[in-house]
Amino acid sequence: MIKDSFRNVGLIGRPQSSLVVDTLNLLEEYLTHEGLTVIYDEDTAKLMHKSGMQVSSRALLGEVCDLVIVVGGDGTLLHAARSLARYNVPVLGVNRGRLGFLTDISPDDVINKVSAVLNGQYTVDQRFLLNLEARSNGNRIGEALALNDVVLHAGKSVHMLEFELYIEGQFVYRQRSDGLIVATPTGSTAYALSGGGPIMHPKLDAIVLVPMHPHTLSSRPIVVDGDSEIKIKITETTLRPLVSPDGQSGLSLNAGDWVYITKHPFKLKLIHPAGYDFYAACRTKLGWVNPIRGDE
Amino acid sequence: MIKDSFRNVGLIGRPQSSLVVDTLNLLEEYLTHEGLTVIYDEDTAKLMHKSGMQVSSRALLGEVCDLVIVVGGDGTLLHAARSLARYNVPVLGVNRGRLGFLTDISPDDVINKVSAVLNGQYTVDQRFLLNLEARSNGNRIGEALALNDVVLHAGKSVHMLEFELYIEGQFVYRQRSDGLIVATPTGSTAYALSGGGPIMHPKLDAIVLVPMHPHTLSSRPIVVDGDSEIKIKITETTLRPLVSPDGQSGLSLNAGDWVYITKHPFKLKLIHPAGYDFYAACRTKLGWVNPIRGDE
Amino acid sequence: MIKDSFRNVGLIGRPQSSLVVDTLNLLEEYLTHEGLTVIYDEDTAKLMHKSGMQVSSRALLGEVCDLVIVVGGDGTLLHAARSLARYNVPVLGVNRGRLGFLTDISPDDVINKVSAVLNGQYTVDQRFLLNLEARSNGNRIGEALALNDVVLHAGKSVHMLEFELYIEGQFVYRQRSDGLIVATPTGSTAYALSGGGPIMHPKLDAIVLVPMHPHTLSSRPIVVDGDSEIKIKITETTLRPLVSPDGQSGLSLNAGDWVYITKHPFKLKLIHPAGYDFYAACRTKLGWVNPIRGDE
Amino acid sequence: MIKDSFRNVGLIGRPQSSLVVDTLNLLEEYLTHEGLTVIYDEDTAKLMHKSGMQVSSRALLGEVCDLVIVVGGDGTLLHAARSLARYNVPVLGVNRGRLGFLTDISPDDVINKVSAVLNGQYTVDQRFLLNLEARSNGNRIGEALALNDVVLHAGKSVHMLEFELYIEGQFVYRQRSDGLIVATPTGSTAYALSGGGPIMHPKLDAIVLVPMHPHTLSSRPIVVDGDSEIKIKITETTLRPLVSPDGQSGLSLNAGDWVYITKHPFKLKLIHPAGYDFYAACRTKLGWVNPIRGDE
Repeated sequence: MIKDSFRNVGLIGRPQSSLVVDTLNLLEEYLTHEGLTVIYDEDTAKLMHKSGMQVSSRALLGEVCDLVIVVGGDGTLLHAARSLARYNVPVLGVNRGRLGFLTDISPDDVINKVSAVLNGQYTVDQRFLLNLEARSNGNRIGEALALNDVVLHAGKSVHMLEFELYIEGQFVYRQRSDGLIVATPTGSTAYALSGGGPIMHPKLDAIVLVPMHPHTLSSRPIVVDGDSEIKIKITETTLRPLVSPDGQSGLSLNAGDWVYITKHPFKLKLIHPAGYDFYAACRTKLGWVNPIRGDE
Repeated sequence: MIKDSFRNVGLIGRPQSSLVVDTLNLLEEYLTHEGLTVIYDEDTAKLMHKSGMQVSSRALLGEVCDLVIVVGGDGTLLHAARSLARYNVPVLGVNRGRLGFLTDISPDDVINKVSAVLNGQYTVDQRFLLNLEARSNGNRIGEALALNDVVLHAGKSVHMLEFELYIEGQFVYRQRSDGLIVATPTGSTAYALSGGGPIMHPKLDAIVLVPMHPHTLSSRPIVVDGDSEIKIKITETTLRPLVSPDGQSGLSLNAGDWVYITKHPFKLKLIHPAGYDFYAACRTKLGWVNPIRGDE
Repeated sequence: MIKDSFRNVGLIGRPQSSLVVDTLNLLEEYLTHEGLTVIYDEDTAKLMHKSGMQVSSRALLGEVCDLVIVVGGDGTLLHAARSLARYNVPVLGVNRGRLGFLTDISPDDVINKVSAVLNGQYTVDQRFLLNLEARSNGNRIGEALALNDVVLHAGKSVHMLEFELYIEGQFVYRQRSDGLIVATPTGSTAYALSGGGPIMHPKLDAIVLVPMHPHTLSSRPIVVDGDSEIKIKITETTLRPLVSPDGQSGLSLNAGDWVYITKHPFKLKLIHPAGYDFYAACRTKLGWVNPIRGDE
Repeated sequence: MIKDSFRNVGLIGRPQSSLVVDTLNLLEEYLTHEGLTVIYDEDTAKLMHKSGMQVSSRALLGEVCDLVIVVGGDGTLLHAARSLARYNVPVLGVNRGRLGFLTDISPDDVINKVSAVLNGQYTVDQRFLLNLEARSNGNRIGEALALNDVVLHAGKSVHMLEFELYIEGQFVYRQRSDGLIVATPTGSTAYALSGGGPIMHPKLDAIVLVPMHPHTLSSRPIVVDGDSEIKIKITETTLRPLVSPDGQSGLSLNAGDWVYITKHPFKLKLIHPAGYDFYAACRTKLGWVNPIRGDE
């Protein structure tokens, strides 16, 4: 028997593969049978090629749902998280194929796991987001949210930029590099990790700054308190650099512009089926299994 | 005029070089002239080759002093910190030569800076310490404090050990490596940094775990909350591995033994002259100045 | 007395700063006074704002000169090297400001050092170049030379590409990453170094392949014999990836295209004043001087 | 039908597990049945607990055998290689369990693969060894061979040493660190790799120098020509540092002592069954398979 706490369940997916469509249909059937109301996200509904669905805008979904299930990869969930964080609705990720750090239910197991969640067997992770604001001559020229990371980069590859970094008002360094990755604990196992950043436990209240191909060999990732205000001034560039949230197309900048990065007031309520284990996800996803030296 | 808050000032140094002896004498003369009581640490006094000093044990120094000035390198201060942390006495570091992260007053500048501190121009950093406890068959076989890091290693170089790591009771991995560095933010700019760990701001409440030459190429530094309980089980070793606080000679272990690492209840009150800047120390100490690519 | 071996001396520079113009004028005056013929590169001459210069095309410069002096940074020399390598003319680099790995004469010292070189006090480094060829459906769609490196990348930052790497006909891996740096020993102290590649001595006959932000944590730089044929197949991309020689704007590619990288038959004859020392350049340029741990 | 080229086959193993004993017995039976003479290495024979074996010293084994088969892990093969290299006898490695880079035949497949080798279906890798010589006050105090690496280290963990490095007579740097790994291409996928060194193709004629936890953050692995003479002077140490070939117990050193490392005149003839592929071994052994970022 389903607990009262979940009545309206939203469905979001990228129904470009039959696997996602199948999983969405399966979920709808199961949830309806359990007496719950299923509401499709507008964009998702458009691609389902069927009628009779209850459909709403993303914003309304956030307002009326008690749970949103996202079917896809980590990218789909990142997108949903940015739009839903302000509504405080819990989000559950179902993977399309390969398991992700955020979408940790496999399609084969979806009904079992969703059923367990609906019966109260779950944990909630509060994941903080970053707020990104770009300013030119004191005027705000853009704003965005990021769950994984904010990346400042030259816009085109193999071009460098020069910037000054300030944390909590203190000058840190002037750096020439390909750019800078500013990541949350959630993002620490994504792009920041491939740049040499540390893994940060999801519960840690911290932000990591990872330089990308820095000219100064002694540059290292820096981990600061999650409430730190991070400011970056573009000091020199031959191109128009970009600042990108979660790998999306970003805000275009000029020399002299500033980027402000701070913790956002809203948090993503990420649902995991009971038994979720961050380190088990690391072992599987990161391949902590292959020794390089013999074992005599 | 010296503020009332400092009356008894302890002096600790490693008087093996004339520079340290000169600095200690200079400090004694200045502090006495200002009407303060100067008390030498026992071990320090033995090497001063003079008479008429007020001398006390390290423990008493911690109890009766309002400030302890440590003259030497970061190693001298680490040692003093471990013994003084329980007494909550503020500690100020004067460097012997090269500036350190902890001993950030240069000998040339010592009277100016100490005078400023005595007049209230200073900031206090609370630096947490790690408590290390080793257990064999459930019995405690040793305990120690560390301000920088606790290092588990094979005892002899070029030998590996195998251990299991648990954080907050969760299994993380079984690893074959030369060992593991568990560092505080204070220690993140010391040994852990040379092992590929991130720089952590001193105010961050976190612990970093840095694998030493791990067999698994996908092993990475992990940053966890400062209140996390870290447990390590020695699973296999050809030698007797050691666990060492702050690079000191350590506790000897056997296969099957456990090491527990947790935040210690006491904190070091580290005094900095007003104007201290962690990132400025990084720029100087870490050499954030040498670009490798041309700048056309 | 100047040796007979140098009669016609070419001058190349990026006369955008008064420092470069001053150095070029100084060199012209000195060389003419010594009875040598000075020939300006066409593009350089245009910016000198004076008359009475002997001027020739870059190609002719390569054919008639016994020595070409390049005034600027490493970027100016890279450009000159690519155009002059086929003419086997020795090249000498004078730096505009900061010393580079290739332009290792400082402007203050230029007449002393050039005079020494003209009198036979020099060594010659043979630096090999890479030949880059892109093919689409079996047709060559572009070709270029590189002294430092060939970089395959997504074209825009924060986009990844997927490619297959083959060395000497053997499949190495299919990789998802920001791209791949393929560098000569000359380039090993440039971009490849900031990506985690090793330093390779200029005399080593080897090529290094450095993955850029690879998704697979166990990816590592690979060093292969300098005569190895390297083939890369673009397997998947959302954009049009680029392959860029020495950081220049590159050739545009599509999924299914191939890139071939091999050692070029011509070598750059790089002249160093007697006493040149590669490791001394490393110590200066890379900042091998800043210790991170105290030294007690 | 077995080719004439192999008549006497030596067997070496570490018969501490029943798996190795089984494999040795299986090999003896098969080889005898094919009309070949099987000769056990002395140390191996002692542990076989059976009679009727033809046994010889390691040296004689090298002299009279046309092929030596080593059953065990990479460590067993390293040991055999150091003692057999001078006799120019081909060596074939059979793994005890996990596949190694050197012992690339699995026990399940041993008869098929050995049969193929005996019928001429194999390739020969020439792997060079390093010669290590330690000198004190001009006198040789020890000498050793290494197939993987020569490691200079403090002897005890968490102690550092200071040394000066010279390559081809040129001063490279004075370094404070835990030590230095000097590795062949064969060793580049072993300990050197866990210290951040590059993978070097077995055919490359080069040596890599990998600093261990260096104090200077800008220290990087250096790759030099295989014929380079490497000299290291111990300048400061609180303990007696060691220099160890292939992870074995090493030669004990004092401050002021020198270590000379050069390519050894003999090479190991390492046999691979036809179809051996270095990069395939990398993919399997190093786990080039686990992506960290999602793939939408």
